[in-house]
Amino acid sequence: MPLDTYDKIMMLAKRRGFIYPSFEIYGGVAGFYDYGPLGSRLKLNIENLWRSFYILKDNCIEISTPTITLYEVLNASGHVDEFTDLTVDCKKCNQSYKVEDIINNISVDEAIKENKIKCPNCKTNLKDAYPINLMFSTKIGFGKVRDAFLRPETAQGIFIDFHLLYRYVREKLPFGVIQVGRGYRNEVSPRQGIIRLREFSMAEAEVFIDPENKTHPNFNKIKNLEIKLFDNIKEMKISVEKAVDKNVINNQALAYYMILTQEFLYSAGVDPEKFRFRKHSDNELAHYATECWDAELFSERFGWIECVGIADRSAYDLQSHIDSSGKDMYALRKYEEPKIVDVKKIIPKMNELGPLFKGNAGKIKSILENLEMEDSKKITINFDGKEVEIPNNCYEIVETKEKKIGDKFVPHVIEPSYGIDRILYCIIEHSFFEGKEKDEEYKILKLNPKIAPIKVGVLPLTNDDRLVSIACELDDNLRNAGIETYYDDGGSIGRRYARMDEVGTPFCITIDHDSIKDNSVTIRDRDTTKQIRKKIDELIPFLKEKIDN
Amino acid sequence: MPLDTYDKIMMLAKRRGFIYPSFEIYGGVAGFYDYGPLGSRLKLNIENLWRSFYILKDNCIEISTPTITLYEVLNASGHVDEFTDLTVDCKKCNQSYKVEDIINNISVDEAIKENKIKCPNCKTNLKDAYPINLMFSTKIGFGKVRDAFLRPETAQGIFIDFHLLYRYVREKLPFGVIQVGRGYRNEVSPRQGIIRLREFSMAEAEVFIDPENKTHPNFNKIKNLEIKLFDNIKEMKISVEKAVDKNVINNQALAYYMILTQEFLYSAGVDPEKFRFRKHSDNELAHYATECWDAELFSERFGWIECVGIADRSAYDLQSHIDSSGKDMYALRKYEEPKIVDVKKIIPKMNELGPLFKGNAGKIKSILENLEMEDSKKITINFDGKEVEIPNNCYEIVETKEKKIGDKFVPHVIEPSYGIDRILYCIIEHSFFEGKEKDEEYKILKLNPKIAPIKVGVLPLTNDDRLVSIACELDDNLRNAGIETYYDDGGSIGRRYARMDEVGTPFCITIDHDSIKDNSVTIRDRDTTKQIRKKIDELIPFLKEKIDN
Repeated sequence: MPLDTYDKIMMLAKRRGFIYPSFEIYGGVAGFYDYGPLGSRLKLNIENLWRSFYILKDNCIEISTPTITLYEVLNASGHVDEFTDLTVDCKKCNQSYKVEDIINNISVDEAIKENKIKCPNCKTNLKDAYPINLMFSTKIGFGKVRDAFLRPETAQGIFIDFHLLYRYVREKLPFGVIQVGRGYRNEVSPRQGIIRLREFSMAEAEVFIDPENKTHPNFNKIKNLEIKLFDNIKEMKISVEKAVDKNVINNQALAYYMILTQEFLYSAGVDPEKFRFRKHSDNELAHYATECWDAELFSERFGWIECVGIADRSAYDLQSHIDSSGKDMYALRKYEEPKIVDVKKIIPKMNELGPLFKGNAGKIKSILENLEMEDSKKITINFDGKEVEIPNNCYEIVETKEKKIGDKFVPHVIEPSYGIDRILYCIIEHSFFEGKEKDEEYKILKLNPKIAPIKVGVLPLTNDDRLVSIACELDDNLRNAGIETYYDDGGSIGRRYARMDEVGTPFCITIDHDSIKDNSVTIRDRDTTKQIRKKIDELIPFLKEKIDN
Repeated sequence: MPLDTYDKIMMLAKRRGFIYPSFEIYGGVAGFYDYGPLGSRLKLNIENLWRSFYILKDNCIEISTPTITLYEVLNASGHVDEFTDLTVDCKKCNQSYKVEDIINNISVDEAIKENKIKCPNCKTNLKDAYPINLMFSTKIGFGKVRDAFLRPETAQGIFIDFHLLYRYVREKLPFGVIQVGRGYRNEVSPRQGIIRLREFSMAEAEVFIDPENKTHPNFNKIKNLEIKLFDNIKEMKISVEKAVDKNVINNQALAYYMILTQEFLYSAGVDPEKFRFRKHSDNELAHYATECWDAELFSERFGWIECVGIADRSAYDLQSHIDSSGKDMYALRKYEEPKIVDVKKIIPKMNELGPLFKGNAGKIKSILENLEMEDSKKITINFDGKEVEIPNNCYEIVETKEKKIGDKFVPHVIEPSYGIDRILYCIIEHSFFEGKEKDEEYKILKLNPKIAPIKVGVLPLTNDDRLVSIACELDDNLRNAGIETYYDDGGSIGRRYARMDEVGTPFCITIDHDSIKDNSVTIRDRDTTKQIRKKIDELIPFLKEKIDN
């Protein structure tokens, strides 16, 4: 069987130092990969390009929070209950499978009961299916331990700091907060190589907006751009403005981050022909989302792969954390002028709440104080995911006048969430070309110069000391100017060009004997193979211009 | 009690968005901190400055491996057995303590038996002390699970890829491999704030060298620099060359990375008066180290803090992984010309090894094939940390001639390992100044412009549309040129300067009414408070020069 594109790329990736299987000397484990010297640089370049879109163009702030996350956080967010896969074990060999990997389009319970589905490994019948939680769990401390998980998303670290971040931006909406880092998902039995990892790199933005005003301040700048949508039936190209007007996309903010995503992916080197946004149907929405679009990239082996999810998480997460922690995580919609209003204030009585709610009394007191009192005589609050009725001897209601400067509300969240590893793989696949020249096979990665791990190959034509000395000095100067180089003096010049082409280096500089006299060198372009002559003095600005555009 | 410097800094850090306690709305957990918008930027800047030293000056390559690490890796490396703290629990309240935190200079067993030491929490007697492993553990997969830990260091991810990385550098020593990322240590009861974290950021370099040649190619460039050493009795300043000649530092390579560390820390803004290298005494060496120097930084509350460890790990790690995995992780010291030599080759017999060693037979076969046969008649190998004798019916010895191109050996490793969080805290403390001016208290962080999270405050003097429009355009241009800015139009200009001083912003640009006419602005220097006037066109190169030096 001939190798497919995925096999070819993963072989190249391993041979040339992009991607290695993790723990290989101990037999490896599915779902884990290492980034080698070139892969790690490519990944950093993609992440930094991403940051430039979110920090420069969109003025987001960035934070960095632990990967180990308290049980309480992920219980409040719904992950303890909802972040699950339906799983099934073999009765004989005990191998576990994700149900959707082995069963299609038929009722699971029925299929298992009637033994229609056998273990793919040993062909025995399967036990009953059951949901398993996909978070890696661990414990903090000794003796009195705290339960914790490795984070399934970086988002929760942002949500639980909302009150601090809202103060940092001086209490103005909208504002976006990004986080770049590791996420974890203990897949039952991952079988798709680098596409389905148990530990992966994410880049997420949580943009907090006023639910009554889901516009975006930069919408006008991008409204005429065309966006590529797929509604599960057909693809269409449509202007962002039209998509919002016709309610294909629910609101401006969601549409803005979709087009930002499209621009970022094109800029990183994704083939526009292998890109589209697909809308989630209602039954595939995550537990926290009201609308979600996936940016999908096409790969030869796996078909359309979800690489970015852009979700409207509404008030789900902040409200959940308010309910569970009792803390004030509201935003304020200020009036032009303060108003004097009649209010019914709830005055909690700790001497009644204490015996009734024990350790939770303080939290409940704080929830009651923040409650907007309405007409009903009965007070029911959300606490730890449960409805709790507060007996009326536990509080007093006082009617009073109060100066009010605005309305409190729970912001909504638009979340663009990027899977960096999948994007990286797809960029390599979209950049991969191979062919034959003079009976020699060659492979080229046409990586965008912006993200290429090596920008310039520095190649002295011979080992002549004078050439080597010019080449070394040039190499130093380029590196000091922040241009990643690879110095290579081994083998024929054609062989060296080929080595650089294969890892996506956009430019090669050859230092030859004329360089000694004319202080000039030859620059070869990877994609055209055209060569031009340039003064050494002019190289750095020339290359910077080429790399940044 | 007045606040000490640590308290003041942590309050400023929280108020201004550098550092937040993690999971605060759920009560927090010791040993976890979040980096807010300014802290996260400061950390990235420090990491990138560090990279520039190791990648630009030292030509290291970078890789990125999972934080979840297989049991087999950390068992081979000795962490399962050795990465422990002696711990003791209270008989009554069950609180756990690290023994060295509560007992000084007396025999632990004796102290506990004679009830000399009580629980610091409830004053009850303590149970017997016992060692606990400090790694966070977790499990990969379901059904057939694999045991794993969160990595205690990034180093092991590099060691187990040695064979791939050695091929990447085309089999030449020395070469260095860096990794920047999270490390984990499940501290028993951390009580030192951000100085003792359970999840932290590390930057490590593993430099592979020939044990017969522990020199460094760049040693000549740095040999005259003075290094600040403390031999546990007195401090001394001595040239790097002298330190190696007098064997104060064991070898050139170790000395080279010490001076690189000193240069990096000074460049990042560490106060040279609060810096020294301290040598580990024999009884404090880690299980893998033959010599180790700590770069220590002084802090007012904690005294001298270990922030960087520079260890000679000898062949310990690679040899352990060779022994445990049976894989070829050797380097080759090539001869000038190939030699024909007499060799005794071991030919393993799988039909004998199989029944005897079962699943391990393959590994043992591979170890035997790689063994250099010496005179002894008995073959004993290291396998999984144990000495295993191989019965002589399991192999044949064949005497033959072979073309040999060099000697195989296990490289030694010099490891500079940096604790980024501690360095970041110390830099803030060393940069922190406070005082009074006109009865107003002020605080300044004199951060080095290279690492300051915000480089330039952009301050329109009034809300005049014309000033605002110039200021916004300038802000955009600076950000697009890669210069981090903060746009601030709120409050008096003095108040705005003070806000920028407090977070370490080295320059403020004020746009005033003259700017409309003369296209110039005022630049204020944080440290001198001097102001100069500059044309807007000349700003970017002027600021870049100031920031990079």
